[in-house]
Amino acid sequence: MNFTLQHQAVNSQARAGKLETGHGTIETPIFMPVGTAGSVKGIHVKDLKEDIQAQIILGNTYHLYLRPGTEIIEEAGGLHKFNGWSGPILTDSGGYQVFSLGDIRKLTEEGAKFQSHIDGSRHLFTPESVVDVQRKIGADIIMAFDECTPGDAGYDYAKKSLALTQRWLERCVNQMEKTKPLYGHGQSLFPIVQGAVYPDLREAAAKHATSIPSDGYAIGGLSVGESEADMYAMIEVVNPILPKDKPRYLMGVGTPINILEAIDRGVDMFDCVMPTRNGRNGMLFTKNGIINIRNKKWAADFSPVDQDGTSFVDHNYSKAFLRHLIISNEMLGAQIASQHNLAFYLWLVKEARRQILTDNFKAWKEELVQQLGKRL
Amino acid sequence: MNFTLQHQAVNSQARAGKLETGHGTIETPIFMPVGTAGSVKGIHVKDLKEDIQAQIILGNTYHLYLRPGTEIIEEAGGLHKFNGWSGPILTDSGGYQVFSLGDIRKLTEEGAKFQSHIDGSRHLFTPESVVDVQRKIGADIIMAFDECTPGDAGYDYAKKSLALTQRWLERCVNQMEKTKPLYGHGQSLFPIVQGAVYPDLREAAAKHATSIPSDGYAIGGLSVGESEADMYAMIEVVNPILPKDKPRYLMGVGTPINILEAIDRGVDMFDCVMPTRNGRNGMLFTKNGIINIRNKKWAADFSPVDQDGTSFVDHNYSKAFLRHLIISNEMLGAQIASQHNLAFYLWLVKEARRQILTDNFKAWKEELVQQLGKRL
Repeated sequence: MNFTLQHQAVNSQARAGKLETGHGTIETPIFMPVGTAGSVKGIHVKDLKEDIQAQIILGNTYHLYLRPGTEIIEEAGGLHKFNGWSGPILTDSGGYQVFSLGDIRKLTEEGAKFQSHIDGSRHLFTPESVVDVQRKIGADIIMAFDECTPGDAGYDYAKKSLALTQRWLERCVNQMEKTKPLYGHGQSLFPIVQGAVYPDLREAAAKHATSIPSDGYAIGGLSVGESEADMYAMIEVVNPILPKDKPRYLMGVGTPINILEAIDRGVDMFDCVMPTRNGRNGMLFTKNGIINIRNKKWAADFSPVDQDGTSFVDHNYSKAFLRHLIISNEMLGAQIASQHNLAFYLWLVKEARRQILTDNFKAWKEELVQQLGKRL
Repeated sequence: MNFTLQHQAVNSQARAGKLETGHGTIETPIFMPVGTAGSVKGIHVKDLKEDIQAQIILGNTYHLYLRPGTEIIEEAGGLHKFNGWSGPILTDSGGYQVFSLGDIRKLTEEGAKFQSHIDGSRHLFTPESVVDVQRKIGADIIMAFDECTPGDAGYDYAKKSLALTQRWLERCVNQMEKTKPLYGHGQSLFPIVQGAVYPDLREAAAKHATSIPSDGYAIGGLSVGESEADMYAMIEVVNPILPKDKPRYLMGVGTPINILEAIDRGVDMFDCVMPTRNGRNGMLFTKNGIINIRNKKWAADFSPVDQDGTSFVDHNYSKAFLRHLIISNEMLGAQIASQHNLAFYLWLVKEARRQILTDNFKAWKEELVQQLGKRL
């Protein structure tokens, strides 16, 4: 895996880059649609590629491990063969999902014991097993196994949690060295920087992560309950420490505004379920602001879903029809809204990249951020 | 609306025809995907047209009347404008849906009083109001308002029910004459032949319907609990009475075998929710038989969904991946299975037509029916 920093914006930390993987080149900044169980909800693979123009998608270790199970994916020849997505895939390590299980998981030095949310069966994830599973999934980018520290964690808890994450990271690195890719393409481990909302912990975490030579670095444990100000502050602490010549991935973030603010602070990669999850509930992101399509004001608005949109769904369907579908719980409503939102997110990062390359990012961002938060 | 009988099969009542409508020509026999609330569940309109190659779709008066409501559809300029489907549309009259409401509907001479399944609000459908609603929806083919007699109705009930359907039909015809199309394209009323499983009632019903000059005739009240033998017997009673030079529509039927048997008995048009509803549950129809994709035997079958299939979904996804999606309740699973099944149904009627035109229908049908019922 090779990252080329192509351009550094003026009066901003924003960067444009190129990340070469065994499944093609990713132009950064980039947003990665989330395919939790191997499928981006409601979206055909060909639409993901041709219509939304996704360059890399996410899979989820926890979900894929439970269903269909590692054996089936290995027998298929990896997730790329299994789900038909031929571009790069990043797999989340399962740390966040296990963290979300609450009462039905227990962390020890060894790893995380948890019960399946599907059938209650008991499982153990260790840094080693999670690397092994991601090897078998065939992820181009493998995430380290970490504890996702809650946003409201006290300092002592956050410090202990970070220490555990760091010991687990070292075990992941060892396991990566002891094992090999299974399907002929390279696999890179990204360490995850934790530390909750404590600048000194984030600084220590970033330094520790950076001490491990890697093809990229992630910032985790943000957008998990802390304030947006805290989130931005933590990015500002971490990014100057991370190496300039490697991509930086902010995990699980966020709104279009969050993404622009993080790009402005030097982040290169993003993922979030928001475009699909909020889409299913009828929330549309547009460059003019947010549409709640359930609102009665759209009932007789026969204009296109988004006249500036890049997806066919933006032009083939009207707001009134989409509202009707969402209100009636018709599957097609969720499909249209998800596809629109993903296409919008991909447009957003592509346009951010263009603005960075033409040295206009900061002014463009300041103006767009005023629009994005509006309620239409 | 103009129907041309192009060819009558040898040693079979099967026919190939051409039905010209204000939204294009339909080649019969044809299957019509059901878009209950204006959307064929899980299917993008462009896929319906280009991938599935549907030639006409159904809308449902009961559902569309309740949501989004007749006013919105009229303001949109009719259902074609509202949902973006530019081909012909047939609307079911709502008789069947009201019949399905059971305890929350009451039939009188005037019409059917019912409570909305959505919010419990009270409504009245009359033959006149149902014609008016279908005028406003802009259906190319308007169905008469009828009582869908239950499959297990006794003779006396069925006879009284038929008499009501006949009086309602005459009121529908009057209302059609008193009103005009709203959007510049023609609209034709199809009478519905009821009579439960009683040959003399079916015969009387067919004669009565035929006495009313119409662009096509429907057979209703089948596949509602009676045996398949009874269903085929009733088709055999009715079809010889219906005019040869008009299309015959068997409502709400059925399995691929049912469709071939009905084509063999002279039916031209079909609709059914089975391809989408059963698809959502993981049942796939193929020319080799039925696949229950939830079955464990498909878990590691990485062959295409249907190597003989005409849809892109048949070739872009494997059985194992589809099984995983359906088992995991991923929307994409329902989308793929629905799209496959609809494409298969459209292939089936297109191929039946080709076999009729080349005088090979009967032999082809006999052979295929042996396959279609198999459990793979």
